[in-house]
Amino acid sequence: MIQRVRGTRDFTPQDMSRRRQLEDLLRRISRDYGYREIQTPVLENAELFVTKSGPGVLNEMYSFEDKGGRAIALRPELTAPIIRFYVNDLTNLPMPLKLFCISSCFRYEEPQSGRYREFYQYDVEIIGSEKAEADAELLLLADDLCRRLGLNEVEFRIGHVGIIRGLLDAAGMPQDRQSELLRLVDKKKLDEARAYMLSEGVSEADAGDILATCQKKGDREVLKGLKGEASEYLERVIRLAEKGGASNLSLDLGVVRGLDYYTGLVFEIDAPELGAEKQICGGGSYALAELFGGQPVQSTGMAFGFDRLILAMEKTGQLAPEEGIELFILAVTPAQSEEMVRLAGGARKAGISTEFDLMGRSMSKSLKYASSRGARYALILGEREMAAGKVLLRDMDNGEQSEIGIGSVVDELRQRLAVR
Amino acid sequence: MIQRVRGTRDFTPQDMSRRRQLEDLLRRISRDYGYREIQTPVLENAELFVTKSGPGVLNEMYSFEDKGGRAIALRPELTAPIIRFYVNDLTNLPMPLKLFCISSCFRYEEPQSGRYREFYQYDVEIIGSEKAEADAELLLLADDLCRRLGLNEVEFRIGHVGIIRGLLDAAGMPQDRQSELLRLVDKKKLDEARAYMLSEGVSEADAGDILATCQKKGDREVLKGLKGEASEYLERVIRLAEKGGASNLSLDLGVVRGLDYYTGLVFEIDAPELGAEKQICGGGSYALAELFGGQPVQSTGMAFGFDRLILAMEKTGQLAPEEGIELFILAVTPAQSEEMVRLAGGARKAGISTEFDLMGRSMSKSLKYASSRGARYALILGEREMAAGKVLLRDMDNGEQSEIGIGSVVDELRQRLAVR
Repeated sequence: MIQRVRGTRDFTPQDMSRRRQLEDLLRRISRDYGYREIQTPVLENAELFVTKSGPGVLNEMYSFEDKGGRAIALRPELTAPIIRFYVNDLTNLPMPLKLFCISSCFRYEEPQSGRYREFYQYDVEIIGSEKAEADAELLLLADDLCRRLGLNEVEFRIGHVGIIRGLLDAAGMPQDRQSELLRLVDKKKLDEARAYMLSEGVSEADAGDILATCQKKGDREVLKGLKGEASEYLERVIRLAEKGGASNLSLDLGVVRGLDYYTGLVFEIDAPELGAEKQICGGGSYALAELFGGQPVQSTGMAFGFDRLILAMEKTGQLAPEEGIELFILAVTPAQSEEMVRLAGGARKAGISTEFDLMGRSMSKSLKYASSRGARYALILGEREMAAGKVLLRDMDNGEQSEIGIGSVVDELRQRLAVR
Repeated sequence: MIQRVRGTRDFTPQDMSRRRQLEDLLRRISRDYGYREIQTPVLENAELFVTKSGPGVLNEMYSFEDKGGRAIALRPELTAPIIRFYVNDLTNLPMPLKLFCISSCFRYEEPQSGRYREFYQYDVEIIGSEKAEADAELLLLADDLCRRLGLNEVEFRIGHVGIIRGLLDAAGMPQDRQSELLRLVDKKKLDEARAYMLSEGVSEADAGDILATCQKKGDREVLKGLKGEASEYLERVIRLAEKGGASNLSLDLGVVRGLDYYTGLVFEIDAPELGAEKQICGGGSYALAELFGGQPVQSTGMAFGFDRLILAMEKTGQLAPEEGIELFILAVTPAQSEEMVRLAGGARKAGISTEFDLMGRSMSKSLKYASSRGARYALILGEREMAAGKVLLRDMDNGEQSEIGIGSVVDELRQRLAVR
């Protein structure tokens, strides 16, 4: 047997039914909030991701040389391609651009539980606004999505890279030394962070204050006592989002997302219901357009792990079973085959989802198949009934059968199904 | 600027609105016919496609060695992955399996008009039936889809590889020499086909008869005078499909699809409306499961080019414009920002698709943006009106404005929009 590539997945009809339900929900909420769907290619020049994240990313993604010697990558995430698309083609559109996409991404690392080499993200970006309203809008969508998914224990961890950077400025650490500190904070290596600050000439007292700030968690109260634009801005974002109805927000000033292109708000969302793989979202405001050769533009965005949202919907019982068909038609002998196909054509034309028998099996086997397909009714074409202009209509839920005139099949079914 | 990879595309919001409309139509018709959606990974072991199509395929697809030295390919088509999935995991499901998928595929050839390196297919497969009913069912879906797409000039070219093979058998050509002949016929190289037959010992008269048969086109009448199972089978497929309502079917016995795994029915569909890129579909019945290490199973399937179907919908005026938002809310001064966000939250909760201003621009600029987003109404929050508990509701279609109480915004909009 030829195997599937390790770390990739095939999706059965049941899987796809579930995935489409989540996609439908994501499209609906995106449109309700005025976001527009876009799509970028799976293939990008590897340079795009190296420019964004540094050469280390080459070890974590699928990349290869094409026949022309160009380094090509399978996209590991969606923000860089979207900003690349914006810089190349979308700068003339009215601002702000509110965009979303639901697409597959690829990473080349050892597969482990819940982490696949081909995975899916729901990505949302606002391009062109530097106002607190834009960050608030993003949090509102995230909060509402969690509510619609039934995630009641969800935990937002919201920070602002400017708060720690402001404290580091005041403590005399040059800006080009701060990124390393933010990376240590992001990884929760607070002892190393302290040692790094001291080695960079920050005083014991300042280092202690900064680490204490990094550990502040809670509601807007944790911002009390902090000065500076960043904490005022963050306070305003939270206030706006709460006015808009967000009810799950909480702060964690140690969330700094250790990448240089984040410029302000940063946040992560956990759904403790999901256990070890609880982080469902990461986001923040960032500056990437100029890195990719465009004019500077402020952006803010977030990405949800699609596969984790599916898990969430499973846990909260939000997924309907796969839809079955409405009608299955079978011919008792081959002599009724043409009539079987004709009746199927009529039923389908009337909007009734219909299968007819393709196997020529016994009636009991055919009915078993119909049942496996969730058929609501079966239409049985027997020689004797047909000779009398009749067919047998079987209610697959209770097994009741009744003879109906062959000319009234569609009307009868329409009535029974109270059709669409 | 970092460029997009050559031969790939970004899709704007307008593009995506159109593509989703086509996807919705394809999902709806697939479900009406009882097909179930599946999905396979973008990455496959290259061996899969080499096994199906021979080593030549390596030159036409993206393939690369992963870090473990395994040859990986980006799927160039969907049938092989689906049958691989079936052989690996789905053999225990009740037969027949009626499956579809809508997915991207990749080919590595010089990009040209209408041919992209990343492209999309709508693929339909029936696994497990060897009856004429299965082939007829496929043709019915194809015919209905063309009708729903408004393609009135569509031309089916239906053949059966068994007809020419039967004539070659009778003319004494060994079966292992026949594939080369079918490839020549498939490429319409009839002079070379004649020379090949003569060189293989087929008589002048037989070669002439065979080439005449390859040129037969038309309705079921063209099968008159042909003997053998294949032509009887084909006649039955067409008769069944016509009973089921198919109205576009026509035969072309020179269609043989030059690949060895086709076993019976073969067909192509042209939409002359599309000009040079008129072929929208290819299909047929085939045996691949055993090639991939599974038990033999008869299958029949077809693939439509998604991009060509979009073109078709454009030409036939089937595509609705991108949906706009229902409401845009703006604050005349920052003092009304919180109320703006609060009202947006209420409207969204009521199912009204809503944006609020993220830019803090002048009213006229904000209204221009709202108009670009297709907003049906704008809600204007001015200081004076707000002090009196009022806001201004503007009908964006005709510019009429009226003051309404701030507490009745949602009710008023619901009435006006006769909401969902």
